[in-house]
Amino acid sequence: MLQPPVIALMTDFGLEDAFVGVMKGVIATICRSARVIDLTHAISAQNVRQAAFHLDRSIDYFPDETIFVCVVDPGVGTARRAIGVQAGPHRFVAPDNGLLTPIFERWPDARCHELTNATYQLPDKSATFHGRDLFSPAAAHLATGIPLEAFGPAINVAECSKIELWKNRHLEDGKGWQGEIIATDHFGNLITSFEAGMIADGGDWHVKVGNAEPLRIVRTYGEVEQSKPLAYIGSSGMIEIAIRNGNARAELGVEEGDAVVVRQMNS
Amino acid sequence: MLQPPVIALMTDFGLEDAFVGVMKGVIATICRSARVIDLTHAISAQNVRQAAFHLDRSIDYFPDETIFVCVVDPGVGTARRAIGVQAGPHRFVAPDNGLLTPIFERWPDARCHELTNATYQLPDKSATFHGRDLFSPAAAHLATGIPLEAFGPAINVAECSKIELWKNRHLEDGKGWQGEIIATDHFGNLITSFEAGMIADGGDWHVKVGNAEPLRIVRTYGEVEQSKPLAYIGSSGMIEIAIRNGNARAELGVEEGDAVVVRQMNS
Amino acid sequence: MLQPPVIALMTDFGLEDAFVGVMKGVIATICRSARVIDLTHAISAQNVRQAAFHLDRSIDYFPDETIFVCVVDPGVGTARRAIGVQAGPHRFVAPDNGLLTPIFERWPDARCHELTNATYQLPDKSATFHGRDLFSPAAAHLATGIPLEAFGPAINVAECSKIELWKNRHLEDGKGWQGEIIATDHFGNLITSFEAGMIADGGDWHVKVGNAEPLRIVRTYGEVEQSKPLAYIGSSGMIEIAIRNGNARAELGVEEGDAVVVRQMNS
Repeated sequence: MLQPPVIALMTDFGLEDAFVGVMKGVIATICRSARVIDLTHAISAQNVRQAAFHLDRSIDYFPDETIFVCVVDPGVGTARRAIGVQAGPHRFVAPDNGLLTPIFERWPDARCHELTNATYQLPDKSATFHGRDLFSPAAAHLATGIPLEAFGPAINVAECSKIELWKNRHLEDGKGWQGEIIATDHFGNLITSFEAGMIADGGDWHVKVGNAEPLRIVRTYGEVEQSKPLAYIGSSGMIEIAIRNGNARAELGVEEGDAVVVRQMNS
Repeated sequence: MLQPPVIALMTDFGLEDAFVGVMKGVIATICRSARVIDLTHAISAQNVRQAAFHLDRSIDYFPDETIFVCVVDPGVGTARRAIGVQAGPHRFVAPDNGLLTPIFERWPDARCHELTNATYQLPDKSATFHGRDLFSPAAAHLATGIPLEAFGPAINVAECSKIELWKNRHLEDGKGWQGEIIATDHFGNLITSFEAGMIADGGDWHVKVGNAEPLRIVRTYGEVEQSKPLAYIGSSGMIEIAIRNGNARAELGVEEGDAVVVRQMNS
Repeated sequence: MLQPPVIALMTDFGLEDAFVGVMKGVIATICRSARVIDLTHAISAQNVRQAAFHLDRSIDYFPDETIFVCVVDPGVGTARRAIGVQAGPHRFVAPDNGLLTPIFERWPDARCHELTNATYQLPDKSATFHGRDLFSPAAAHLATGIPLEAFGPAINVAECSKIELWKNRHLEDGKGWQGEIIATDHFGNLITSFEAGMIADGGDWHVKVGNAEPLRIVRTYGEVEQSKPLAYIGSSGMIEIAIRNGNARAELGVEEGDAVVVRQMNS
């Protein structure tokens, strides 16, 4: 039996308004059978980098052929392009503002088309809500089987916007990196810019953020006492900092963008 | 192939509790095939007017035959009626408290029935949660094909409750209107009570709110500098006020209900 | 026609991150046809008791054969067991930390298996996000028809963790109980630990919380004046305290955990 198509939505629209509900109405109008999944609508307003991070860390958990609708779009209504991308097993529709940077890094052979064909947009396109008028219709038409080529001219991926996702630089003594807190989560855990692979050599790595003592990297919350801070490889594949049964953001006074250091102690 | 029915939910229940989840459980019990879409659950507590506005501005983006469940219901448990309405291509279930005013204005020939038939309600109806016990079952039974007539006696739409959606009055010099901020959104944008059609004559219209300078109406955010305020026709079809990449509600200190003026300058 | 399976999700993950979206991606990968319903994701962080309460009060509104995924899991990554349970018409997957206490009380003949079979988990299971790596895959595989027995060894329900859901003790004069506020809701209503059945004798029962006058138990909001407090049998089947068109939590200054008394006056 034919599987229903999956469309995943990621925006900075929040859930206080009817924005997201209306996007789903548009999708249901064009492709009733699509299964729509909210990836998240709580990206910080216009934070393209945060959206890129969450997208990158989420896509592997979705079925092949998922169509990702990514709308964090400070340039809506300006000349910024809207693009549709086929990359690996997935498709993406998004503004051409760097949001898809990790997708292009992972799949340099991605195919990209500009979304210009008015046939696949709502008739009275607004200047401020392309999530409703352009991106949702594009995703739904893709879901019905319209090929990417039909949406507009091909673009060379090399010409698409890219952003710097985060900055890690080597410590002067060569024994680690300085990076930054790239996100915090619902529990107040701090997600660093250090990927698990950076410390995979089995050394005695410690993480230092704010005024906290350097934290040895452990495997689970259970390895430290209640209310104590710890560092560990998070479920995102990045080094994270938490307080066991506490809130590291609040208790350590650390925010997104703050500096953090990972250093090898016994070398 | 038969399309699955679409049910859209709008409430002031928020998402902190299991209220909305339980409504979906009730719907799935009666009509498993229904596709349920959250329009929004963040209507301000008991703000019937705000619900009416969001409903009015959303329905055109939903497929024909959508069943809208609208539960903002300060009078739950009192003698206020529960009604089911067929209007244009859609159906609605709601308390008879004025929430459907824009629906009745748009479709004066709407058909309305009181929802009294206990067959289509949960057996032990509570006095406080008709979203679960009455409105969700009604919508789900409509979705299975039960005709509106079966739910209870017909009501003349003229006898249904209506509310004033908002107040615009002509300026004394006749060169514009005074209205109000009828909603604010997730980005802090201010939605006014002025519809696009009111300024469609091509004149040099400006909007004035709070202590801000009068704002010329532009087409896109890109037409003003970063951090500057602007007025434009919003995606809702109303004139809106924003700060480019900023938060107008916070930075202009303006709230829902505040006065706003639109005035023609060059006439 | 075969009904699509229903999977209901309850977590303390919130909606600010992609946690819940990723769980749905995992489920869609394994069982595309499943209808996924969010029961709630706003359980207070690691509040197992609150989760147990909401689960208990919600399940009767879901279709038979619903699979409940319950992830409030302070012990994730420690030796705490993950369990799958068949109880009455439903199935549950959860950490073995007492969250399912009301399920075991209601269905003492429930069947329970430990979820150990790696076949039904994601390949690189993290130490911190079993909602994604273990519980969602388990639910989705159950939905495809894999029998509970296949997931791991049987556990005697008597050996599963239980918690005390709340504490009610008789007043010294025998004319009522002291209990506690077990939850507050979006509207600021206070949910007490007193079940409707405790006062079903028709006596003149009053409720006392904080500094408010004792409140007679009424049937609907409409029986008191605007802005006045009232007590009533809530939609959860517990006695609740509200302020008509107001917020009892804020206005009475009462919080979850505070003491409350129900007392028979005319006896």
